Amino acid sequence: MNQFGRNFRVTIFGESHGPMVGVVLDGVKPGMELGEADFTEMLERRRGGLKPGTTPRKESDRPIFLSGLFEGKTTGAPLTIAFENKNTDSKSYLSQQEIPRPGHADFVANQKFNGFNDYRGGGHFSGRLTVALVAAGVVAQKQINLKENNKIDINAKIIELGGSADLEKAIEQAIAEQDSIGGIIECSVAHLPIGFGEPFFDSIESLISHAVFSIPAIKGIEFGSGFQSARMKGSENNDPLIDKYGKTATNHTGGISGGISNGNDLIFRVAVKPTSSTPQLQESLNMSNEKIETFSVSGRHDLCIALRVPPVLEAVTAIVLADLQWNI
Amino acid sequence: MNQFGRNFRVTIFGESHGPMVGVVLDGVKPGMELGEADFTEMLERRRGGLKPGTTPRKESDRPIFLSGLFEGKTTGAPLTIAFENKNTDSKSYLSQQEIPRPGHADFVANQKFNGFNDYRGGGHFSGRLTVALVAAGVVAQKQINLKENNKIDINAKIIELGGSADLEKAIEQAIAEQDSIGGIIECSVAHLPIGFGEPFFDSIESLISHAVFSIPAIKGIEFGSGFQSARMKGSENNDPLIDKYGKTATNHTGGISGGISNGNDLIFRVAVKPTSSTPQLQESLNMSNEKIETFSVSGRHDLCIALRVPPVLEAVTAIVLADLQWNI
Amino acid sequence: MNQFGRNFRVTIFGESHGPMVGVVLDGVKPGMELGEADFTEMLERRRGGLKPGTTPRKESDRPIFLSGLFEGKTTGAPLTIAFENKNTDSKSYLSQQEIPRPGHADFVANQKFNGFNDYRGGGHFSGRLTVALVAAGVVAQKQINLKENNKIDINAKIIELGGSADLEKAIEQAIAEQDSIGGIIECSVAHLPIGFGEPFFDSIESLISHAVFSIPAIKGIEFGSGFQSARMKGSENNDPLIDKYGKTATNHTGGISGGISNGNDLIFRVAVKPTSSTPQLQESLNMSNEKIETFSVSGRHDLCIALRVPPVLEAVTAIVLADLQWNI
Amino acid sequence: MNQFGRNFRVTIFGESHGPMVGVVLDGVKPGMELGEADFTEMLERRRGGLKPGTTPRKESDRPIFLSGLFEGKTTGAPLTIAFENKNTDSKSYLSQQEIPRPGHADFVANQKFNGFNDYRGGGHFSGRLTVALVAAGVVAQKQINLKENNKIDINAKIIELGGSADLEKAIEQAIAEQDSIGGIIECSVAHLPIGFGEPFFDSIESLISHAVFSIPAIKGIEFGSGFQSARMKGSENNDPLIDKYGKTATNHTGGISGGISNGNDLIFRVAVKPTSSTPQLQESLNMSNEKIETFSVSGRHDLCIALRVPPVLEAVTAIVLADLQWNI
Repeated sequence: MNQFGRNFRVTIFGESHGPMVGVVLDGVKPGMELGEADFTEMLERRRGGLKPGTTPRKESDRPIFLSGLFEGKTTGAPLTIAFENKNTDSKSYLSQQEIPRPGHADFVANQKFNGFNDYRGGGHFSGRLTVALVAAGVVAQKQINLKENNKIDINAKIIELGGSADLEKAIEQAIAEQDSIGGIIECSVAHLPIGFGEPFFDSIESLISHAVFSIPAIKGIEFGSGFQSARMKGSENNDPLIDKYGKTATNHTGGISGGISNGNDLIFRVAVKPTSSTPQLQESLNMSNEKIETFSVSGRHDLCIALRVPPVLEAVTAIVLADLQWNI
Repeated sequence: MNQFGRNFRVTIFGESHGPMVGVVLDGVKPGMELGEADFTEMLERRRGGLKPGTTPRKESDRPIFLSGLFEGKTTGAPLTIAFENKNTDSKSYLSQQEIPRPGHADFVANQKFNGFNDYRGGGHFSGRLTVALVAAGVVAQKQINLKENNKIDINAKIIELGGSADLEKAIEQAIAEQDSIGGIIECSVAHLPIGFGEPFFDSIESLISHAVFSIPAIKGIEFGSGFQSARMKGSENNDPLIDKYGKTATNHTGGISGGISNGNDLIFRVAVKPTSSTPQLQESLNMSNEKIETFSVSGRHDLCIALRVPPVLEAVTAIVLADLQWNI
Repeated sequence: MNQFGRNFRVTIFGESHGPMVGVVLDGVKPGMELGEADFTEMLERRRGGLKPGTTPRKESDRPIFLSGLFEGKTTGAPLTIAFENKNTDSKSYLSQQEIPRPGHADFVANQKFNGFNDYRGGGHFSGRLTVALVAAGVVAQKQINLKENNKIDINAKIIELGGSADLEKAIEQAIAEQDSIGGIIECSVAHLPIGFGEPFFDSIESLISHAVFSIPAIKGIEFGSGFQSARMKGSENNDPLIDKYGKTATNHTGGISGGISNGNDLIFRVAVKPTSSTPQLQESLNMSNEKIETFSVSGRHDLCIALRVPPVLEAVTAIVLADLQWNI
Repeated sequence: MNQFGRNFRVTIFGESHGPMVGVVLDGVKPGMELGEADFTEMLERRRGGLKPGTTPRKESDRPIFLSGLFEGKTTGAPLTIAFENKNTDSKSYLSQQEIPRPGHADFVANQKFNGFNDYRGGGHFSGRLTVALVAAGVVAQKQINLKENNKIDINAKIIELGGSADLEKAIEQAIAEQDSIGGIIECSVAHLPIGFGEPFFDSIESLISHAVFSIPAIKGIEFGSGFQSARMKGSENNDPLIDKYGKTATNHTGGISGGISNGNDLIFRVAVKPTSSTPQLQESLNMSNEKIETFSVSGRHDLCIALRVPPVLEAVTAIVLADLQWNI
């Protein structure tokens, strides 16, 4: 199901080359001021249209408010935000009907949906849908920060690209080699009050990872010291309390105890695989099961999709927090 | 909420030192033979009572069927399986009411539940609840393998302890140093048909990670090459198709394309942090905000909880697959 | 939340005088042929634009497919169907900001949404939203009838208007008296296989009544002999089996045993209250708490909303059946 | 699924002649005092063991707290309450394996669960499960009344039995005729604040009817003037506001406007069919499809199950209100 959340509920729809992609948000508080300008920065960061290494496809990405907004304020009714797909070019995708692209969902989509999936540009499986996630995240961020005296601050930044911490050089090299690269992104949430999350199935790690893996190309997530904790001793890894508000001397646990935010910064990192659509020659099979030796992706793609992930990561984090907020 | 799943629904309950822990399973197929013997192996592996490095607490861990079973077969009505907590010793936990244990949920539990949480042995936050997950997993494994001609085979094994791949030596060293250690566990699912999972929010990665992070002490998860993919090039990381059934030459993606099982082995790894209850001296604050210099955990605990995680990991994986099965 | 269903999930959005009302359908089977023509009859019946006693407001009510449809067939991705609100006239509604209309949701909407609700034409509370329900119902009806050898046939008809079984005369009288009237509608489902519904919370009565009461103006529902059963003896009310397929000699239970369809016609009746917007003079209070003696509704309204309910009732019934279908 | 609620979640389990019936409650507020005594009155009213016309089966019906309670107070973790089935007598039910009882779920249960259902005493389909609903209702009533300055008062009373408003005479006649009878019960909720419920699918009518039809033997529900409204004119049926707190001069709408509580008493009535297990001779078919002329029910049953419904109706009403409470 294309839906997340119990009390702040996000329903996404659309295809890469359909008329629109969008999101219906339910559980939005009434009376929040909201307009196109609120979305500009996050959408622009996601678009990455000007950065080297990102797709030349240009979408105006202007939010269209189909419902739930009245006189510039949210009404409390479902808030529907849509984005037109204007700048589509389906011709270069036609061959994937015959030849599933390596690393893409083409093959399984065809199998699961009995060949009826919209294959153009990946259809519903496209990263294009992340524009809807970002829009939801903008609203979620507003909603978790309605109280004046606290500002929950979500911040995602790239810390590694193509195995290197020199981000610019990594991109230059990818362009020079004409091969796609991945990256690692760290997301931190400051000023998060104690109490977000529940033990077990609604742990904050469970819900954030659930939402994060809905972002295409994510292949791993770790909280706090993560995989490194597995190599530490208990006496090193435990974070000693230093004040009665829950602050700890270290933060190996990434701000989460027993599935619940503990008053320290929430920290996690995700692994983004290299874009499947590399310009390099690839091998595949066509639908007649013949090996195709010199198949190459010709659509307009990102050499490094990781560049565009940070605002999406912030968005899904905000969505999770907005959903958990009712029970703190 | 203490619940997971839409069509195979798992509801867990209980506390470490309460009368019982258990699980209600809804969406169980009628007519499956089920008895105590089906649970023995998985429960025994979880108990780890005899292995060095695990808790000396001994639970008989015999499943009690409270509902949903008739004449040795499931009825299709809710299946309730409970386990008595016989062998409890609450005395050594009393002090944590005053002094939250480092690395544990004591502090946040107290804050979130306004001091009304059952603090004995961690109460509802205890790893004791994983016995309920394992019981659910036993039923789920039966249910996903009802078709005779295919056996979905879920297998979790420890691949690293305390940073070392020599598992025995790592345990010996932990015992010698009297400090807890963590580990890394790999889970693979063989013979999984194409089509489990959905794009975006119900991706198989989203649901597995959601379920996995409900296991206490897990701090990271990666699918396929995971964090290593982020350091590969697209031409290396893509898995070329080699037959019309979806088999690929490599399996960097861990058997998942576009959130959906692709016919190859599903592979993921998780990071387990070292047990918080290390025998080492620790620092904490008491509830009067005074620094406690020589606090030490005296309950009966595992030096290496990772030893007991593999069957729990298999269980939650089976739960996810049973829940996704309706739509393949 | 503006959502119904677990496996066939319906999310509605929109306001009476906003840009669009619509629905996102998730869990739609791929490969169903679908086009504007499939919706015409049901939408036309709902519009009732030509019948005496219905609103003179004319909407073209043409479905716009925003997602989930490709080359005339459903794709299995979320299917979004929207309807433009072209023919709106907000001026006559402005006064309800000041004077809540008797029988309408104006007062509680204002209270619940802190005055931020879109009040024009009832906003999100409008019967206009039923166009989205009807659209969902058209798709649901297709989906429950995919198997060629059985045609589940849902049929709602008015059996009483204004307390009279002479429907035409009742309308004529309402027009003559310039006062709105209600009615009773019976819905029957023929050829429904045994097994739709579950005991207790997901009983077919629970789910149908849940969906039915989401239609504005419905104030009662009864299954089979309903309130009349309460006056019968057990020996009269029980329906004796007459064949091994479950057919019964009588059908007092309305085709449902233990919450589950029993192979006989599913029968229920609903009570529709008279349209709140009667042309008669009414009393109310304004927001300054002053009694308003001669308040009259001047918007364009139906004298008898019951006339338009039958297709909506069929639609929500189909939605429920599509949602229950996975588990029969 | 045997579950109701989003934020106050009720999961029921058990069979008539299994070891236990019970309920898991999630979303329970921590710190509420709770003990066996809180349940006595409601359970006693449900048992009806001493009234003429009710079953001679005697259950001690003492709640056993399996989880979620510590030192006499709720902890905020799942609260599990179970009841032992001590006084069962399965012998008289054995024949229904062969001969489905008229008016019961025996036939459809056998069909839906492929013959694996526990048929003893109706198994999971038994009215015995309502003891779990009542237990949930006791907790729900506490939870909706945590605020000291308001007491939401839920009250259900029988207003008609066997078609007569003389309740005692109706019972006497049923006993004399040895035939079961039904009844009508009215439930009212006083002091309910404005704002419970949402427009459309989560309307208070939708959720109450959903919960109410999970009670066995209910065949109809109407809110306010209900079916009678359908025979009134708009000018009669509308309830004029008389003060700024939402009080209305009449209450035809039963305290609900646009699906939301409007500050007046919430009123609804339900129809309870006569007990299926009448002592009268009945006709049925056996599983070999042979007509059985002189089949008679010999289990211990209620001549008038309606007598025991009022506390169950209050319970499910409280459950719905507890679930809606988070969003007012």
